[in-house]
Amino acid sequence: MITGRQAPRRLSIFGSTGSIGKNTIDVVDHLGGPENFEISALTGNENIALLADQARALRPALVVTASDSQYEALKSALAGSGIAVAAGQTGLMEAADLEAEWVMAAIVGTAGLAPTLAAARKGADIALANKECLVSAGGLFVDSVRRGGGKLLPVDSEHNAIFQVLEENQRHAVERIILTASGGPFRNSSIEEMANVTVETARAHPNWSMGLKISIDSASMFNKALEMIEAKHLFGLSPEQIEVIVHPQSVIHSMVGYTDGSVLAQLGAPDMRTAIGYALAHPLRPNLPIERLDFAKLSRLDFEAPDEKRFPALRLARLAMVRDGVQGAVLNAAKEVALEAFIEGRLSFLSMADVTETVMDQLAGLPAASSMDDVFAVDKEARQRAAGLIN
Amino acid sequence: MITGRQAPRRLSIFGSTGSIGKNTIDVVDHLGGPENFEISALTGNENIALLADQARALRPALVVTASDSQYEALKSALAGSGIAVAAGQTGLMEAADLEAEWVMAAIVGTAGLAPTLAAARKGADIALANKECLVSAGGLFVDSVRRGGGKLLPVDSEHNAIFQVLEENQRHAVERIILTASGGPFRNSSIEEMANVTVETARAHPNWSMGLKISIDSASMFNKALEMIEAKHLFGLSPEQIEVIVHPQSVIHSMVGYTDGSVLAQLGAPDMRTAIGYALAHPLRPNLPIERLDFAKLSRLDFEAPDEKRFPALRLARLAMVRDGVQGAVLNAAKEVALEAFIEGRLSFLSMADVTETVMDQLAGLPAASSMDDVFAVDKEARQRAAGLIN
Repeated sequence: MITGRQAPRRLSIFGSTGSIGKNTIDVVDHLGGPENFEISALTGNENIALLADQARALRPALVVTASDSQYEALKSALAGSGIAVAAGQTGLMEAADLEAEWVMAAIVGTAGLAPTLAAARKGADIALANKECLVSAGGLFVDSVRRGGGKLLPVDSEHNAIFQVLEENQRHAVERIILTASGGPFRNSSIEEMANVTVETARAHPNWSMGLKISIDSASMFNKALEMIEAKHLFGLSPEQIEVIVHPQSVIHSMVGYTDGSVLAQLGAPDMRTAIGYALAHPLRPNLPIERLDFAKLSRLDFEAPDEKRFPALRLARLAMVRDGVQGAVLNAAKEVALEAFIEGRLSFLSMADVTETVMDQLAGLPAASSMDDVFAVDKEARQRAAGLIN
Repeated sequence: MITGRQAPRRLSIFGSTGSIGKNTIDVVDHLGGPENFEISALTGNENIALLADQARALRPALVVTASDSQYEALKSALAGSGIAVAAGQTGLMEAADLEAEWVMAAIVGTAGLAPTLAAARKGADIALANKECLVSAGGLFVDSVRRGGGKLLPVDSEHNAIFQVLEENQRHAVERIILTASGGPFRNSSIEEMANVTVETARAHPNWSMGLKISIDSASMFNKALEMIEAKHLFGLSPEQIEVIVHPQSVIHSMVGYTDGSVLAQLGAPDMRTAIGYALAHPLRPNLPIERLDFAKLSRLDFEAPDEKRFPALRLARLAMVRDGVQGAVLNAAKEVALEAFIEGRLSFLSMADVTETVMDQLAGLPAASSMDDVFAVDKEARQRAAGLIN
């Protein structure tokens, strides 16, 4: 399967207890498990029982819980196993410092930034599922990967699709990329209806089963906004080259348009293992027990232009890309605070974009980040301002 | 545009006055014309006025009319131009013998076989638009290209689409190809309605503007049957790996399904210049003034399983692939005779498949062809039998 490689390859999985992490472990199993892979580090957060189970099965050199308060729980769960245990940001950085040829970077949020960047600098191939690395620290992160010499392998289904159909030797001929968006649960809702939506209706994603925050980000299309900014950095595109099309069936995961009029697309069932497997086996394709598409059964695929009035997140993404600098970090941080306020019932669904835009405008003059400290400072500043606006 | 090459490249265009030939000349113009390309030979058939015009514009070393009786007309049309003129099968073989790095093989029918095979043996890259080379002489032809050392570049929009998304290093992971078919004008007709169709209704192809014979072959799906057999030889597939899906909009030109669950597709406007340009500029993509796809405007893409009861040609293609040997040549030759009889009002639309199947059954025991003479003999035998059945 993974021919031409010296097995076992050393892998680390950052965020192993989340949806991407669990799927990664499943793919590792399908691609030969311990015969082909040796696990350097596993990291999780609060789900100690699962993290300990994974550790006992995969025998990593180190297991880390990102939560300092869970250190003792993890330690006692793995007592006598001989597996080293660590916790908190220090623990995550220890994990990043272990030798690994391939790292799944699936820690959610800003917490994922530092360890992912560290692993990239050490030269590991980075299978990227964390959004902040590109949205908040795009330039810095891409530069770190380049200097480290590893590959940057996008795991988001949209970016992975583009990665699959954007051949290295055809970069000169890329005209545009077309990110597909399901449109979420409010695709056909009026703006009046959207003003009063609740967390319960917003979390119901039509095609993919996902966590709460990302489901609401899908409903507001802030998720797509982040993906636009990610795509810009990942593929070195200008804002005008990044299009979004609403495609409710989510069968086409994304597309690339070329100067000869061709559009190449990657299609598949809504199963993250295709993208994870592509990243793990790259440059070869693995064999995975994923549902195959049956086009007669699909019957039709629909497309419609996104409505930036009802989904202002897309407009804000374009604004952030045009302004550049640290506007991606500002958008992301302000949106995070607004999202939490919406979940807690302190902010309306549509006001999330208003808060985000106001903070973006307030911090529009900031220069590009030259270090991670700059990024963290901007992140903090944007969060404070967003919180201030909401209160 | 065509960077990394020593311009000008020498090209020959076999079948320059047909639809593919005219589009090829247009693409050559767009990609720099005489600055980048030198024309070795142009060949046409009866349209002497156009052939002479093309010759005066492109200044080839040799111009050939496939029609012996048009030799004098072509000669006098080009009198004083200094361009050499030839005619008939001898003329075509002279054209094939001229040095050329790239040959557009767009002569329609069995007449295209010998010159295309000769050019392939000389080592030219073959941009293949002639169907018979693969349908009737698949094994021999692919072998000749391999021995000659040139590339085989499919120009049919379906095969070109597959060629675009079937990377060389992913051959191990190809599970299936999915040829799209418009379904033609009788997609929704009952078998009773199809029993009485006329040439006029059968020629009305919904998406592509094409010649009479190929339009009727589209209506009966014999065109798709030939493409299935072509795909088998082009991509080295087994019959079970070749699927057909009816897709009335013809926006997805074809797809490849991989072992990781991914399906890659090439999409585009119905403009042959994309495929021709891809073949001409390969391995780089050219810049062409072709209509770009607007997905919001397309709005939807439909799919349905083909009905092999109403379109038995697909079943016959599978039969020919499973039986292998010279069954492709038999299918093609018998179908050609049946098609002519239909056009002349001597055979009903649905009987074309009956005649073809009967001749295929009669000649099912024949061994694989070991030379072009074998192919021509089988072609002749199948034609005689089909004619006999019809009379």
